[in-house]
Amino acid sequence: MAHYKHILLAADFSDHGHHVANKAKELAVANQAQLSIVHIVDNLPITDATYGPIIPFDGDLSEQIMEAARKRISTLAEKLDIVEDKQWVEVGSPKFEIVRIADENEIDLIVVGSHGRHGLALLLGSTANGVLHNAHCDVLAVRLKND
Amino acid sequence: MAHYKHILLAADFSDHGHHVANKAKELAVANQAQLSIVHIVDNLPITDATYGPIIPFDGDLSEQIMEAARKRISTLAEKLDIVEDKQWVEVGSPKFEIVRIADENEIDLIVVGSHGRHGLALLLGSTANGVLHNAHCDVLAVRLKND
Repeated sequence: MAHYKHILLAADFSDHGHHVANKAKELAVANQAQLSIVHIVDNLPITDATYGPIIPFDGDLSEQIMEAARKRISTLAEKLDIVEDKQWVEVGSPKFEIVRIADENEIDLIVVGSHGRHGLALLLGSTANGVLHNAHCDVLAVRLKND
Repeated sequence: MAHYKHILLAADFSDHGHHVANKAKELAVANQAQLSIVHIVDNLPITDATYGPIIPFDGDLSEQIMEAARKRISTLAEKLDIVEDKQWVEVGSPKFEIVRIADENEIDLIVVGSHGRHGLALLLGSTANGVLHNAHCDVLAVRLKND
């Protein structure tokens, strides 16, 4: 299909994330494409009236979260036969970081889970939506069920 | 790839629409899937201060627009080997009509062109974005270049 050469799976570790991962893998096989994986640890600031308007996560907590994310990505990547230098864990705004990594690695298809338009997804804007708006390549939004 | 069975091409007749159409066709072939096509004539009301807040297109004009859309869909469908009963031209809000037709026809992948986040697309919200928010199936947003 469509001759994609380098597919990027934007992994989010939600309950239905394996469904998205499987689709990305199937696509990579069908296209004989390179498959890469990225997970973005959302850089949500913690606000505390005592110390000022915005305080980022403290260093230790950040490092623990990153370490946990790296382990989960590594486990998932192993299942999908993705080598280590095609795995990225970054901190920041998911939509911008995913698009940046796609641009830097000549990705031609981003595969991302798509949540329904309600609850937090509606309030914050979903990652799929943000990626769609900003990407310079094709985006496959895989619908998550029971969501 | 991903075993899609019924793919819906949301055709918009933009300059780069053939690029989206070709991807939809390639996907259908690769998946041995049924390919269907829909075009929505956007139901933009015309406002006129003399007659009141909102006046829809008059009947003749609507019919001319629909007839022109049907001809373009028919020409495109022929190129893509889509039979007549898998072609739809409807009037309404693209995002809702595309999703309605997808639901009614057990579509499992909608293929839609994706414009950049600027100009009118930013102001009005793009069709791709609206479809992504509302669809109950996967959505492939094909990036339109030079846009």
